[in-house]
Amino acid sequence: MTQELEELVSLFRKGDTRALAKLITMCEESEDKARRIIDMLDVDTQRRAHIVGFAGAPGIGKSTLINRVIEEYRRRDLGVGVLAVDPTSPYTGGAVLGDRSRMNRHSVDPKVYIRSMGTRGQLGGLSRATRDAIRLLRAYGKDVIIVETTGTGQNEVDVARVSHTVVVVMMPNLGDTVQFIEAGPVEVADVFALNKADLVGADATMAELRSMVQLRFASNSWVPPIVKTIGTTGEGVKELVEWIEKHYKYLVETGELRQRERRAYLYEVVDLTKHRLSTLVDSEIGSDSHALEKIDFLDGSANPYKASDNFVKHLIERISGHTQQKL
Amino acid sequence: MTQELEELVSLFRKGDTRALAKLITMCEESEDKARRIIDMLDVDTQRRAHIVGFAGAPGIGKSTLINRVIEEYRRRDLGVGVLAVDPTSPYTGGAVLGDRSRMNRHSVDPKVYIRSMGTRGQLGGLSRATRDAIRLLRAYGKDVIIVETTGTGQNEVDVARVSHTVVVVMMPNLGDTVQFIEAGPVEVADVFALNKADLVGADATMAELRSMVQLRFASNSWVPPIVKTIGTTGEGVKELVEWIEKHYKYLVETGELRQRERRAYLYEVVDLTKHRLSTLVDSEIGSDSHALEKIDFLDGSANPYKASDNFVKHLIERISGHTQQKL
Repeated sequence: MTQELEELVSLFRKGDTRALAKLITMCEESEDKARRIIDMLDVDTQRRAHIVGFAGAPGIGKSTLINRVIEEYRRRDLGVGVLAVDPTSPYTGGAVLGDRSRMNRHSVDPKVYIRSMGTRGQLGGLSRATRDAIRLLRAYGKDVIIVETTGTGQNEVDVARVSHTVVVVMMPNLGDTVQFIEAGPVEVADVFALNKADLVGADATMAELRSMVQLRFASNSWVPPIVKTIGTTGEGVKELVEWIEKHYKYLVETGELRQRERRAYLYEVVDLTKHRLSTLVDSEIGSDSHALEKIDFLDGSANPYKASDNFVKHLIERISGHTQQKL
Repeated sequence: MTQELEELVSLFRKGDTRALAKLITMCEESEDKARRIIDMLDVDTQRRAHIVGFAGAPGIGKSTLINRVIEEYRRRDLGVGVLAVDPTSPYTGGAVLGDRSRMNRHSVDPKVYIRSMGTRGQLGGLSRATRDAIRLLRAYGKDVIIVETTGTGQNEVDVARVSHTVVVVMMPNLGDTVQFIEAGPVEVADVFALNKADLVGADATMAELRSMVQLRFASNSWVPPIVKTIGTTGEGVKELVEWIEKHYKYLVETGELRQRERRAYLYEVVDLTKHRLSTLVDSEIGSDSHALEKIDFLDGSANPYKASDNFVKHLIERISGHTQQKL
């Protein structure tokens, strides 16, 4: 595999999109492969990119809006990568490569790369592969990396953990604006987009959002703006992108960018470590038939807490390399 | 706390239901408390109980049916404990004590104990507290422990992992019988209950189930029976309980009971160990502000895989007690 990988990385460095796609696929396939790829590249810190998360409920026209946002970035001659992370999407498991149909108009533009990411193999939080894909897009030289997620609650929090700027997309008359606000995504918002702003009721929702923002963010040094957009016509999208860029500037100037990146990195290392330890436990247990024989070794008294103590000790000896002497 | 705990355990041993309830609550409150309680009791293996899981989609009358099953067991003068584990229920977090309204008719019978269990603090699988509650009900002397879960997929698998006998409840005209079957719960079934068997379409669903059982279980030594029940009238419930008892006998005679119990215990120890390691990672990271300072210690090169290696090494040294010498 090493030679194949070296060739891929060489093509990747020349800007070959298929090599990029193949490397992301390999990152999805296994942690081992991802590790080897990241080891070889190791250029993440050198390249700068603005990571922008888009969060919001399904059906509010997020993909159409993102399409327009891509157009606006292209007008500014910036390279864009889009990772669509949708836990409810049938595209889970990394089975779908390349472009999503609704974003197809950019599929011929070599400066735009769009991809659906699976959520398979994730241990809470964003999948490891999605974080590796962000790293690859940075190394590839993308200026802007958009991470799109759907749903409320944990998904928004996860996207916020990897993004510099989080755009929370809403629409008028969601019926449950207040409920949606309570559900959490609002807390992570840096910019609000009120999409489908041509619908009746937009002004009322705008007023609701305004008073909520005043209430929640008044004491913050960055108060999230609310931008009216119409994804289908592109209205308001220029202003939206301007606000996204303003927020990036704010992050750079206040030093918060560095803080956010450090925090994102920490979460990534913690998730990886937990996953590794969990895998270690599973591999130590091995197949069921073997495992059953281990129970008596673990504990004879049917006290799972004592058994778990013994098991942790056993694992540590094992990893420490003392196993052969002690067991 | 020790004195309070000793008093509670003493009351518990005398058969005090409130002491039982309080001890389960303490198990839900924290792993530390649960560990102390299990250490003090340590009688789990001495007492025998038949653990019966009830699985099935919401809305098929599972609670009503279980009510009838309790009545049937009481007619046989057996003590019954019911743990209702419903991840979609608003009663999560262990906030609700005592009886569930739909099972209320048994709330005056001292030989029946019914309780909703929260799903908070669970790391995949059934919550630790639910397993501790099963252990407490065994120690308390219940003859039958019913674990009720709702939903498809993982929940059924989890219940199967703690149960001796799994009853999968279905109803006619679910519309998606085949889809339901494909979703997985069928694989873990030891007994099928076709509830609401007075509905039109019951015969057709029965035929579907029969051919499915023939297809899937033909080569097994135990072929799951399909019992028609009507929860509202109690029809078929006697036969259902007879089949549940027959299955227990089968497990005892073939030695599979011991196998299932060992497997359940193994899963419990594995889950506990994973949870413990995960907690260890979190406590090592500590609060965010401290954690950010640790990043440079973890890794300077923004390679999360190397950082995670370092972190695992650090954790092991820490647990092994070599920390003071080496850091």
